[in-house]
Amino acid sequence: MKLLVKDLDLNAGGSYVAVINEKDATALGVYALDRIKIKRLRSKKYVNAVIDISVGHKIKEGELGLFDEVINALDLEDGIHIEIEPSPKPLATSLIKKKLDGYQLNKEEYLTIINDIVENKLSEVEITYFVAACHIHNMSLNESKYLTEAVAKHSTILKFNDKIILDKHCIGGLPNNRTTMIVVPIIATAGYKIPKTSSRAISSAAGTSDVVETLAPVKLTPKKVKEIVKKTNGCMIWESSLNPSGADAKLIKVRHPLRLDPQGMLLASILAKKKIVGATHVLIDIPIGETAKIKTKKKAKSLSRDFIKLGKMLGMKIKVIITDGSQPIGNGVGPTLEARDVLSVLHNDGPSDLRDKAIQIATELLKMAGERNAHTRVLEILESGQAYSKFKEIIQAQGGRKNIKLEQAKLYYSFTAKKNGTIKKIDNKYIAKVARLAGSPQDFTAGLYIRTKVGEKVKVGEELMTIYANIQSKLNEAKSYANQVEGIEIH
Amino acid sequence: MKLLVKDLDLNAGGSYVAVINEKDATALGVYALDRIKIKRLRSKKYVNAVIDISVGHKIKEGELGLFDEVINALDLEDGIHIEIEPSPKPLATSLIKKKLDGYQLNKEEYLTIINDIVENKLSEVEITYFVAACHIHNMSLNESKYLTEAVAKHSTILKFNDKIILDKHCIGGLPNNRTTMIVVPIIATAGYKIPKTSSRAISSAAGTSDVVETLAPVKLTPKKVKEIVKKTNGCMIWESSLNPSGADAKLIKVRHPLRLDPQGMLLASILAKKKIVGATHVLIDIPIGETAKIKTKKKAKSLSRDFIKLGKMLGMKIKVIITDGSQPIGNGVGPTLEARDVLSVLHNDGPSDLRDKAIQIATELLKMAGERNAHTRVLEILESGQAYSKFKEIIQAQGGRKNIKLEQAKLYYSFTAKKNGTIKKIDNKYIAKVARLAGSPQDFTAGLYIRTKVGEKVKVGEELMTIYANIQSKLNEAKSYANQVEGIEIH
Repeated sequence: MKLLVKDLDLNAGGSYVAVINEKDATALGVYALDRIKIKRLRSKKYVNAVIDISVGHKIKEGELGLFDEVINALDLEDGIHIEIEPSPKPLATSLIKKKLDGYQLNKEEYLTIINDIVENKLSEVEITYFVAACHIHNMSLNESKYLTEAVAKHSTILKFNDKIILDKHCIGGLPNNRTTMIVVPIIATAGYKIPKTSSRAISSAAGTSDVVETLAPVKLTPKKVKEIVKKTNGCMIWESSLNPSGADAKLIKVRHPLRLDPQGMLLASILAKKKIVGATHVLIDIPIGETAKIKTKKKAKSLSRDFIKLGKMLGMKIKVIITDGSQPIGNGVGPTLEARDVLSVLHNDGPSDLRDKAIQIATELLKMAGERNAHTRVLEILESGQAYSKFKEIIQAQGGRKNIKLEQAKLYYSFTAKKNGTIKKIDNKYIAKVARLAGSPQDFTAGLYIRTKVGEKVKVGEELMTIYANIQSKLNEAKSYANQVEGIEIH
Repeated sequence: MKLLVKDLDLNAGGSYVAVINEKDATALGVYALDRIKIKRLRSKKYVNAVIDISVGHKIKEGELGLFDEVINALDLEDGIHIEIEPSPKPLATSLIKKKLDGYQLNKEEYLTIINDIVENKLSEVEITYFVAACHIHNMSLNESKYLTEAVAKHSTILKFNDKIILDKHCIGGLPNNRTTMIVVPIIATAGYKIPKTSSRAISSAAGTSDVVETLAPVKLTPKKVKEIVKKTNGCMIWESSLNPSGADAKLIKVRHPLRLDPQGMLLASILAKKKIVGATHVLIDIPIGETAKIKTKKKAKSLSRDFIKLGKMLGMKIKVIITDGSQPIGNGVGPTLEARDVLSVLHNDGPSDLRDKAIQIATELLKMAGERNAHTRVLEILESGQAYSKFKEIIQAQGGRKNIKLEQAKLYYSFTAKKNGTIKKIDNKYIAKVARLAGSPQDFTAGLYIRTKVGEKVKVGEELMTIYANIQSKLNEAKSYANQVEGIEIH
């Protein structure tokens, strides 16, 4: 069937999507979410696109509405003729059906599914069925291994000649908790490579990449990353630098609406990142807390067991520490305020909980690498200022400023205790929400600074936190929410 | 957050969808597939829309791309300011999660899910999770009942004072098989109401509605439908006349990519249509055949049991007949060619298999209504010409032509036997495909006419079917496919 191109001037989030008039769809015998092969006349180039049906008059009979991805792939423009025909479903759809019907999939089958996701051959509906199947039927550890390897295969894998490459990961959910920026320079100083990748904030006040970005670029080419790690032993970059294809991101997108977190996918998502940087020894930190991502010891232990087993299957030595996730770690919340805490610790000052946790993680990593007196070595590196020097070296290697200087927000509000008593609870989600309302992470200097910890005695009128913002209305919103909800409980 | 409207000039298939720049999404703390409340300034009107994130420059910071549904609902235009804020997920999403986790849902919960689907509150990803959950965990008969009632609730339900309202349904998959157009006038003549709704073709060569439409309009208002049935006892209309809301259509859309047919949904989809016309006694025809929709006797029996039980729970008496689905019923395939077969049977001529099956169904229906000598009565009505008179009456009541005259296609091709032997098999899907390639159902007069049946002896060169078309290229395509694939086997 020959149709006229109608450029919709809109992107479809990476997928090849075409919109066809319902009459043409009937004539062609295709249905919404079926696929068509779109071909330029007198050319061999084509793409397979998923179709949607236009029931109104927007796409007229004889027209084919096309999103940017197809327009660009075939170098099309408004009003030129193209040829379409129904095209078969990709193989992955029958594999997804198989998983949905309760069968386990093998290595080849996971490779096919991830390949078809990366190449935009699957629609969101089909990817959703895959996630639903993995959620309901669970994935065996073998399946997690296949998924990890399939996701890693589509990234640039860093290769170094060192026998030991260290890495760490935290299962998140706590504001601040910025241990990476302290652990990386310590480990790098100790002589081990630690090519660390991190995420940006989604629902939190800041991700490690947002915090590092207050000092240096975090999106670098794989080549540049390799150079930096060779030169300094470490890096602190955004994970998408090495994995722009985003099979994982597409799975996460459809997991989001129902907040599904199939354990096999969670494991694969994290360990693929470790596989990509070539890690041999990985420390996983699982904070448990009522308002953290992992809420029970039982869940943490189940995860822990699977991490260790799956690590072995993937050729990585994994150690898991289960930590306190009942309140934020550190005081600042928001990119600049968190960077300030990190710098203080590197200057042998700053929040002791953040310092202690970073020391714990660095010590465990050195132990895993076989170092004796790991704890003493870590303290020595930190207290001597070597860690801070290494930090500056890495920041500069990533293209950051030579003189580290952090700006401050223009406005602030002191949030005070409404009664005398002991701090019973600091809600992680409440803290993140207040910081976001103040403008974090987009507004780098916005956020808040916590001036108390669980268990401390406070008096009425005493400052519990300072909220920082640059726009009055944002400060007001954060202030109003902070006062309405009891996120810091005093008993 | 205040943003400028950018009218995308495109419909989203009924859903409220907005596209936001990734920076604004981060600032607002929302993620792809989350929901936002969109409000006109100084107005109380708002809608909740699902968002997608624009990663390119198509939707700039400060803009909100809107599909027609939102533009129309809030009466917006390009360049005016609107206000947005994150809005909570609809209740249905947590119910879908519950079903996904293996729990059964109650009546209220099905009502909530279907209501949210009808009101466009759920995204395709969420509806997909619902279908996946029903597919993997199955639905209890109680759940099918709740789903049937919830779907029916959103339609216009026909109400008549009669104690008996008859209806029939065929589980499809056979070309022609146009019994409805013979059974309806027979039953209506016998004095019973039979307000029949039918579908259009999706992957078949024609649906009953496509065939009726060669003679009369099939999309009528519920009020008009009621008038017609009151006057003539019957109607033959398109099902969407009574059910424009389409919760069922949206479920079917996301079931399509993996061809999922959860038994509980299949039952509910069919029985909701019977509920909507107020049927009290329903005959279900399940043809079994290698190339029919239902392939095994086992599956047919399981369906049959559930139909009868579910019917009882819904207050409908259901009888199931399991019939031969090994080949097409009737000779013509394509709207006009099938209408021609129907008219022949009503004139006491035409294909005997179609006539026999229509007589069987009409007889069973009259028996269900408590008639003695049902078979004799059916033959009398058909042979006396009363059925044909009633047929014309219904066609005219629906706004059809007074003088029924069917047109003929301009071109034809005789498809002949390549060897001597006995017809072993006629593939239903092959027949549908040849007819579609010739132009059916869009081109009303295109299609084919089968001149043989399984078990008949044929000689080389003898005509097996005539393919009809109006466009030479279509005729060539149909001819070429017909000759390449062995859809009519001779042994």
